[in-house]
Amino acid sequence: MKHNFGAGPCILPQDVFQEASEAVKDFNGLSILEVSHRHKDFVAVMDEAIDLVKKALNVPAGYSVIFLQGGASLGFSISALNMMRSTKKAAYINTGTWSKKAMTEAKKAGFDVIEAASSADTNFNYIPKSLNLNDGADYLHFTSNNTIFGTQFKEMPSTSLPLVCDMSSDIFSREINVANFDLIYAGAQKNMGPAGTTLYIVKDEALGKSSSDFMPTYLDLKTHADKDSMFNTPPVFPVYASMLNLRNLINNGGVKAAQQRNEAKAALLYNEIDSNPLFEGTVASEDRSNMNVTFLMKDESRIDEFNALWQQNDLVGLKGHRSVGGFRASMYNALPIESVQVLVDLMKHFSSKG
Amino acid sequence: MKHNFGAGPCILPQDVFQEASEAVKDFNGLSILEVSHRHKDFVAVMDEAIDLVKKALNVPAGYSVIFLQGGASLGFSISALNMMRSTKKAAYINTGTWSKKAMTEAKKAGFDVIEAASSADTNFNYIPKSLNLNDGADYLHFTSNNTIFGTQFKEMPSTSLPLVCDMSSDIFSREINVANFDLIYAGAQKNMGPAGTTLYIVKDEALGKSSSDFMPTYLDLKTHADKDSMFNTPPVFPVYASMLNLRNLINNGGVKAAQQRNEAKAALLYNEIDSNPLFEGTVASEDRSNMNVTFLMKDESRIDEFNALWQQNDLVGLKGHRSVGGFRASMYNALPIESVQVLVDLMKHFSSKG
Repeated sequence: MKHNFGAGPCILPQDVFQEASEAVKDFNGLSILEVSHRHKDFVAVMDEAIDLVKKALNVPAGYSVIFLQGGASLGFSISALNMMRSTKKAAYINTGTWSKKAMTEAKKAGFDVIEAASSADTNFNYIPKSLNLNDGADYLHFTSNNTIFGTQFKEMPSTSLPLVCDMSSDIFSREINVANFDLIYAGAQKNMGPAGTTLYIVKDEALGKSSSDFMPTYLDLKTHADKDSMFNTPPVFPVYASMLNLRNLINNGGVKAAQQRNEAKAALLYNEIDSNPLFEGTVASEDRSNMNVTFLMKDESRIDEFNALWQQNDLVGLKGHRSVGGFRASMYNALPIESVQVLVDLMKHFSSKG
Repeated sequence: MKHNFGAGPCILPQDVFQEASEAVKDFNGLSILEVSHRHKDFVAVMDEAIDLVKKALNVPAGYSVIFLQGGASLGFSISALNMMRSTKKAAYINTGTWSKKAMTEAKKAGFDVIEAASSADTNFNYIPKSLNLNDGADYLHFTSNNTIFGTQFKEMPSTSLPLVCDMSSDIFSREINVANFDLIYAGAQKNMGPAGTTLYIVKDEALGKSSSDFMPTYLDLKTHADKDSMFNTPPVFPVYASMLNLRNLINNGGVKAAQQRNEAKAALLYNEIDSNPLFEGTVASEDRSNMNVTFLMKDESRIDEFNALWQQNDLVGLKGHRSVGGFRASMYNALPIESVQVLVDLMKHFSSKG
C-alpha cells in the first residue's frame, strides 16, 4: 500500500475508487460514461451531490450550490466578474501564488485591485492579520489555505465587505460558517473528488447583480443556479465520483469528524517536526496549515538521503514545492493517520541513525 | 446488452469502459483519480492523447491540439474571443440551436454578428449552401453536424475567411482537412470520450492575435498551447478515457475506417426509413446526418406504441428532441451496426403487423 501525500489531485477513500470503478463498468445497465446527463439516473446523482454539499457544510437557505468546470483558475475570473459592483475596486489578501493569480484575473476583468494585506515580505510564511480596507471595494477575496506555502487562515477575515474565498484546498476539511460568505469556490481535486469539476456556493442575493459589461453565459453563475448545474453537459464522471466521496464523508461523521481527524494528523506531524533536531517547519506556528505541512532539513546536504528513504518506503508526493524547498506533506481528508505515523517513524529513524 | 442510441454523452467502446474502470482501481499502483497531473505517468497520458488526435486527423504542422474544460458552451465564447480581429464582425451560418447559441456568445464577446446563411425558414431541415459574405468579417463559423435537427455539412463551406467550426458531434467520424480551418473545437462526449473535456485544434498563427479588450487567462488559447494543456489541473480522468478511446480508434483503422462503418450504418437506417411506409425522414436527403438520424411516424397516433416496442427491446435514447418530434437515432462511432440492424428489424416488424 502506498502512502499518498500528494498535493492534488490527491488521495480519496479506497471505497470511492471501488464504487467509481464499478460504475464505469455498470451503472444501471450502462457505463456511467455513456449515460445521458438528462437521464433521470444522472439527474438524481447531480441532485444528491448538491444536497450532500449542503448537508456537509450546513449551507443555509438562500444559497445555491453549483458544479462547473475550469478549476479555480477559471474561478478567479468567474468570481471577479460575478462580484463586480459599483466601485469596480476589489480587495485581495495576498498570501502567495494562488492569491496573486486571482488578483491578475480581477485586473483582467476590469477591476482596480487593492492589496488589502500581504505576507510577501517573508516569502508568505504567515497569514497577515490586519487589513487595509479604507478605500471601500466591491468585495474582499482571500485564499483560505495555501498549498504551496503551507499556511491556513485559522480565523476567517472579519470585514463588512462581501467575502469571497477560494477554498480549493481545505473545503470539507473543517467546519465553516457559510453565512459569512457571498461566494465560495473550490476545485474538486483535494477533498471533494477527482479533477474535472469546480464547486461554487453562492448567496442567491449576489446573483445577477454584476456591473461587468462582459459576461459570457457560461461565466455567469446565475445561468447555472437557474438550471441546477445542467445548463450544458456537466462533467458527468467527476460529479459522480464527487458525490460518492461526499456520501463517504457524511457516512464517516461529516466535516466535524473529518476536522478532528485532520487536527490529530497535523498534531502528530508538527510535533515531530518541532521535536526532531534534523527538521524545522517553515511557517509561523499559529498559521500552520492542517492540509499541507511544509518543512525543511536543517542540514541541506542530507535532503537527497531522506528523499531516497521515503521513496523506498512507498511514500508518494513528499517533495517540497520549488518555491519553498524541502518537503511538503499534504494530508487531505482521505489520508489515514497510519500514513502520517509511517512518515513520523521514518523521520525518527532518520534522526536516530545520526 | 443494451443498444445505446443516445445523443450524448453516448456509447463508447466496451474495451474503453473496461480499461478505464481498471485504471480507477489501479494505474501504476495508485488510482488514476489520485495521481498528480504533474506526475510523469499522467504527463505521458496527456502527450499521447495530443499525439493521437494529430494522428487520427492528420493534423498538419503549425497547429496546436489542446484539451480544456467547459464544453462547447464555453467554446462559443473562447472561439469568438480568440478569433476577434480588426473588423469585430463575425459571420455565422445558422443551422439551428447550437449555431444560435454560438451567435449569442459572439455578440456577448463584442461582435457585430452577421448571419451569412440560415435554414430557419423550414425549421433547420437542410444545410444552406450559398453564403452572404459581402461585408467582410473576422471569421466564418459553422456547426458541422446538428444533433437536434439531424443535418450535417457534407462539404465544408468554401470561403476566404478564417474558418471556425464547432465539430462537437461529428469529429473523428469522418476524414477532414484540418488545414482548411483556423480553429476547430469539440466537446468530448460524442466520439472522443466521456463528458468533461473539450478539444481545440488551432492554427498557431491564429494564437495571440485577438483584438478583444477582455481576455481572461483561461479563455486565451495561447495560454494552453504554450503549456501543453497543463496550465492548470486538467480533467485527468476525462482526458485519460479520451486517450483510451483514441487509441481504440487508431487500432481499428482510424478515422477512415470509422467513416466507412458510419456510412454503412447510415445507409442501412435511411434505406429503411425511405422504404418503410410508416416512417419518414425529416431532413433534405443530401444533408442528412450520419450521426443523428431524425425521423417521424407518419401516423402520429402510433408513436407511443413504437416507443414502447423499442424500450422493451433494450434500445436506449431513441426519443426525438422536442424541437423535431418523432425519433432520433444517434449512431456515433462506437455504436455497432448490429444495433442498427436491431432497430431496422423492429421497424420492419412494426410495419408488417400493420
